[in-house]
Amino acid sequence: MRPSRRAPDELRAVSLERGVVKYAEGSCMVKFGDTHVLVTATLEERLPPWLKGQGRGWVTAEYGMLPRATLERTRREASAGKQGGRTVEIQRLIGRSLRAAVDLEALGERQITVDCDVIQADGGTRTASITGAWVALADCIGWMKARNMIKTSVLRDNVAAVSCGIYNGTPVLDLDYAEDSEADTDANFVMTGDGRIIEVQGTAEKTPFSQDEFLALLALAKKGVARLVDLQKMAVA
Amino acid sequence: MRPSRRAPDELRAVSLERGVVKYAEGSCMVKFGDTHVLVTATLEERLPPWLKGQGRGWVTAEYGMLPRATLERTRREASAGKQGGRTVEIQRLIGRSLRAAVDLEALGERQITVDCDVIQADGGTRTASITGAWVALADCIGWMKARNMIKTSVLRDNVAAVSCGIYNGTPVLDLDYAEDSEADTDANFVMTGDGRIIEVQGTAEKTPFSQDEFLALLALAKKGVARLVDLQKMAVA
Amino acid sequence: MRPSRRAPDELRAVSLERGVVKYAEGSCMVKFGDTHVLVTATLEERLPPWLKGQGRGWVTAEYGMLPRATLERTRREASAGKQGGRTVEIQRLIGRSLRAAVDLEALGERQITVDCDVIQADGGTRTASITGAWVALADCIGWMKARNMIKTSVLRDNVAAVSCGIYNGTPVLDLDYAEDSEADTDANFVMTGDGRIIEVQGTAEKTPFSQDEFLALLALAKKGVARLVDLQKMAVA
Amino acid sequence: MRPSRRAPDELRAVSLERGVVKYAEGSCMVKFGDTHVLVTATLEERLPPWLKGQGRGWVTAEYGMLPRATLERTRREASAGKQGGRTVEIQRLIGRSLRAAVDLEALGERQITVDCDVIQADGGTRTASITGAWVALADCIGWMKARNMIKTSVLRDNVAAVSCGIYNGTPVLDLDYAEDSEADTDANFVMTGDGRIIEVQGTAEKTPFSQDEFLALLALAKKGVARLVDLQKMAVA
Amino acid sequence: MRPSRRAPDELRAVSLERGVVKYAEGSCMVKFGDTHVLVTATLEERLPPWLKGQGRGWVTAEYGMLPRATLERTRREASAGKQGGRTVEIQRLIGRSLRAAVDLEALGERQITVDCDVIQADGGTRTASITGAWVALADCIGWMKARNMIKTSVLRDNVAAVSCGIYNGTPVLDLDYAEDSEADTDANFVMTGDGRIIEVQGTAEKTPFSQDEFLALLALAKKGVARLVDLQKMAVA
Amino acid sequence: MRPSRRAPDELRAVSLERGVVKYAEGSCMVKFGDTHVLVTATLEERLPPWLKGQGRGWVTAEYGMLPRATLERTRREASAGKQGGRTVEIQRLIGRSLRAAVDLEALGERQITVDCDVIQADGGTRTASITGAWVALADCIGWMKARNMIKTSVLRDNVAAVSCGIYNGTPVLDLDYAEDSEADTDANFVMTGDGRIIEVQGTAEKTPFSQDEFLALLALAKKGVARLVDLQKMAVA
Repeated sequence: MRPSRRAPDELRAVSLERGVVKYAEGSCMVKFGDTHVLVTATLEERLPPWLKGQGRGWVTAEYGMLPRATLERTRREASAGKQGGRTVEIQRLIGRSLRAAVDLEALGERQITVDCDVIQADGGTRTASITGAWVALADCIGWMKARNMIKTSVLRDNVAAVSCGIYNGTPVLDLDYAEDSEADTDANFVMTGDGRIIEVQGTAEKTPFSQDEFLALLALAKKGVARLVDLQKMAVA
Repeated sequence: MRPSRRAPDELRAVSLERGVVKYAEGSCMVKFGDTHVLVTATLEERLPPWLKGQGRGWVTAEYGMLPRATLERTRREASAGKQGGRTVEIQRLIGRSLRAAVDLEALGERQITVDCDVIQADGGTRTASITGAWVALADCIGWMKARNMIKTSVLRDNVAAVSCGIYNGTPVLDLDYAEDSEADTDANFVMTGDGRIIEVQGTAEKTPFSQDEFLALLALAKKGVARLVDLQKMAVA
Repeated sequence: MRPSRRAPDELRAVSLERGVVKYAEGSCMVKFGDTHVLVTATLEERLPPWLKGQGRGWVTAEYGMLPRATLERTRREASAGKQGGRTVEIQRLIGRSLRAAVDLEALGERQITVDCDVIQADGGTRTASITGAWVALADCIGWMKARNMIKTSVLRDNVAAVSCGIYNGTPVLDLDYAEDSEADTDANFVMTGDGRIIEVQGTAEKTPFSQDEFLALLALAKKGVARLVDLQKMAVA
Repeated sequence: MRPSRRAPDELRAVSLERGVVKYAEGSCMVKFGDTHVLVTATLEERLPPWLKGQGRGWVTAEYGMLPRATLERTRREASAGKQGGRTVEIQRLIGRSLRAAVDLEALGERQITVDCDVIQADGGTRTASITGAWVALADCIGWMKARNMIKTSVLRDNVAAVSCGIYNGTPVLDLDYAEDSEADTDANFVMTGDGRIIEVQGTAEKTPFSQDEFLALLALAKKGVARLVDLQKMAVA
Repeated sequence: MRPSRRAPDELRAVSLERGVVKYAEGSCMVKFGDTHVLVTATLEERLPPWLKGQGRGWVTAEYGMLPRATLERTRREASAGKQGGRTVEIQRLIGRSLRAAVDLEALGERQITVDCDVIQADGGTRTASITGAWVALADCIGWMKARNMIKTSVLRDNVAAVSCGIYNGTPVLDLDYAEDSEADTDANFVMTGDGRIIEVQGTAEKTPFSQDEFLALLALAKKGVARLVDLQKMAVA
Repeated sequence: MRPSRRAPDELRAVSLERGVVKYAEGSCMVKFGDTHVLVTATLEERLPPWLKGQGRGWVTAEYGMLPRATLERTRREASAGKQGGRTVEIQRLIGRSLRAAVDLEALGERQITVDCDVIQADGGTRTASITGAWVALADCIGWMKARNMIKTSVLRDNVAAVSCGIYNGTPVLDLDYAEDSEADTDANFVMTGDGRIIEVQGTAEKTPFSQDEFLALLALAKKGVARLVDLQKMAVA
């Protein structure tokens, strides 16, 4: 029995609310249960120096947590003077995941920066961030289309992400903090709308896992991502 | 005529919503019109080293802005590797303002950290932060009372803040961004529930102001703060 | 009775010595009693990037303390790797105060940087810095005039600053460290030669103050600044 | 045809040389073709603060590249003032991978720090690092055994890692730089001696991959890791 | 002919003024011509962690330049966020030089920090700093003796320093900036009152020098240091 | 008797191995006994901003130590977030030493960066670095000649370095760590192939030394450098 009494293949209650801040070209408040992330997408007519003049754009991401998003207060990274290793790892993952679904040539020489700020954390902040980031990105691209800034399609497919893990010996979908801190194995899957894999990150801090266990997690993830993609489609419809 | 069509002595629509995040001992989402700040109060059984063993507690504040709280995206301070001058100035002001209303001996050897994170900025983020921070602080102290951690009263009075300025030659209350960027003079007033002054910061970037102009701003501020204190009392009732 | 036996409206011995270093376009050693600040003004034919091409110049300030300017040695900020919050707050104040008296269009696309380095601190370092900075700035502008770099008048008025506070229940002018560390209330006033206000910063760390108390401080400040402006005029004559 | 003319399931020439520096408790120069990494293992009788007093030890890793390990000179991170995101990501991966095979209770309250410094980089530095790090770690533990510092077995199993990718449509093992920069998909597998998975990181910067493609990579990885584990066993025999 | 018309073995006008700031246990304003350095010595009852409990004290130094000590304004190191290489090199030299003349056991478990802040720079700031630092240090030790904090003699000998160089083919003593920027060879000598060598730093950025040239510089330095030691003795008498 | 049983004027076993890494334009693994330094020379068609357009090139150096090059593990500077004072001092010395032998005009508007990374440290890392750096630099210049990038001779002479010290009252050549940590006096000499001095750094942490002692060290250094220059000539022949 999971602490939340969910079935092994059951997501938490997910919501994707668009247009939650006034200035951003795209935004989304994404909730996976008690994990709440505010995502904004910012369009800028500039590029990182190493990309200039190549006829392509760029999508990048930054990630942060409000200090009291967590059970105990976490030190503010701006005050500590640097972003921690976990933050850097997550924001690189978000950026790579989104770029896999974007036609950077069609975007033109512009940069979209996706900011994912965790308001409240209860496990799965990186997967919620990616899932919500796609919605904010889609809105930003819609904003550009409405202004005739782009012609062809820029977004190739949906991108959504979910975590899976082995909890008390059972493969389960979408771990919350209570499960995550107890799980033997934890894997994050980023997938497209058509079920292909963008990124897999499986980690066994305690017990290494077998290929069969891994495949069970992958099957759960496919199911979860399919449901998240449906929710994304409803959100942007 | 003000851009927002408000009367010169009219506040923006103000709301103070408590209990907005799950883990913090006190929290408040404060809105002054389109300026939205999420405030949390965190209680910790530790003190800055220089205060240990003196039988007194401490109240401190940190301030941040989400990158896209602003019209143009602002660089994330955690990524820049340090807090800017404006951030440092504001968080010091918030901390001083709150401490003026707290009986630090009655608090005991504990620290309350108030985090003010601006979700959306439309002028007056520091005054909204202080006004909301008092509510989060009051909730945190209520949380301690409910657990018999403190006996006597810790909060001596309400603390609220508002900005005033001379816009197109007229003294006006609670400047929004459109006014603030045009105003000749800008002053922030932090006051107690009984109308006394905790902090005054008046600045004339363009034209220095006369004593009479300053007194007109002070009169507006008294009126505004009195209204904000009423709203605080309703919020915590 | 004040520790220094001064009358409540009496400044410390003030001196403003010009031309104290060899290379700077303007310089001033300012002393308010035992508070000694060395101020230099540097003219550079460059601008911060955000100001380029607008036909206007800029005046900015930096502030520092020698490590043993204080009773106990203060850690060197260059060694700590960053400027503290107090330093940042003060140098922003100095810069704003000076800009309020400068015609930036008349200055042309140039930057003047005012460096205020505290050699010895006995309270009121920020007000002494501003008062001395105006003299160094005036000398720098005189240097430019002598070279026909500017035509019209660049300095609109004098700028001087003084602190006031309520010490043992009495409003007093120009607090030294012994008074400052005991005062209930402390306010800094930056004013022009014609008695208008550029900046007011009043702070009540202990007891909030009434409007009447604040007006008493303002009256003292006017008197003090008028005297400081007389001394500035004698210095640059 | 691979640029190196290797068969799809063929590793580069791998060597694991022990005892390459004088002071470290364990060390290994690992070479995967032209990728050369010097690994040292340092035993210290201290722990990170958050782990003290729990009767367990810790294994952690740091990673660096000599500036001219690469085709173009890479800026020295010590001079840049911080470790980049890629470095942080890799050293966290190495640490997690090793810990999965170590009985931290049996290690006792001590820390082993594994330093992986890339002397020359030709793709696969992180997988070479992990494979060599296990040898250095095994030597360090042997050093402890020889001094009767530990009684029971501390190392539960071998740990080795290899990258796989889809190059020109074909799944291939152990990518060198020429392949890595062209591959559609790149995955790193960390596995135990008994064939279980410790960490999987699959990334599709260009084209998302199917489950079948992923399983083909996994099959190659199993084969490659089995061979690497044999080489580790010969090295420490 | 030297630009300053001095004889080859002639020092600039040197002055050593004691007691120039109010709080420090020792202080000295040292002038070598237009090079002016304010030195303070601070006594603290604490030690660097690695020195605790060994029955010995420590003498250390920090060095800084006011931004406009130089012909062009130099960026403030506190604002740049770190001390430059030249600063680090100089402050290490000053600390080593002073320690060579101090009986650290006799000092007891205390630290003296010598701060050398360059008010105006015209070449030879490091040698002027060392020469003045000895005076400030001597005063600090005198302050301790007057309070019976030390019994035996702590200062073993005088320490003074001077630069020499080959200017237009002629070995000259005590280079000013005009000479220093043109000299082929530049050497700094730190010596004791009895003529022994504490530190020699000879550098040939342009043309390497012969042993004979070096001995000529050494002979000049001996003469210069002897004169500086006389001036120190007069200053502290 | 020296701990290593060497004669007072005997170098450790020295080797200079060229071409040790694949990508660098020049490289050398230099060994002075158990002190091993990997040096690479990188040619870049860019210059530091302050040198542009002057028709001259630049040679600069960076220095680092692998964390476990030392008996106890030294903290990684990239992780500490800055280069320590010793590192900065050494890399400035290496750069100055090499530049003294290079015709920067003949080099053209290019920069050569020499990276010295200590693999194992047993005293004398800076002198080994300089001696090996000259070999890597010579190879880099040879690489340029082979590509007709330079016409005239760029390297004016050899540059090599050695330390000397007074150990148990006897002047000895090329101190190893066991001697260095006990020596009264320690001096580093950088000299050219024709026996002239580029840099002398003599330091007496314990007892100041006499002119005669210094001359004895200089005589030893001349002998040692002559031998090192012979070895360099054999290496590059």
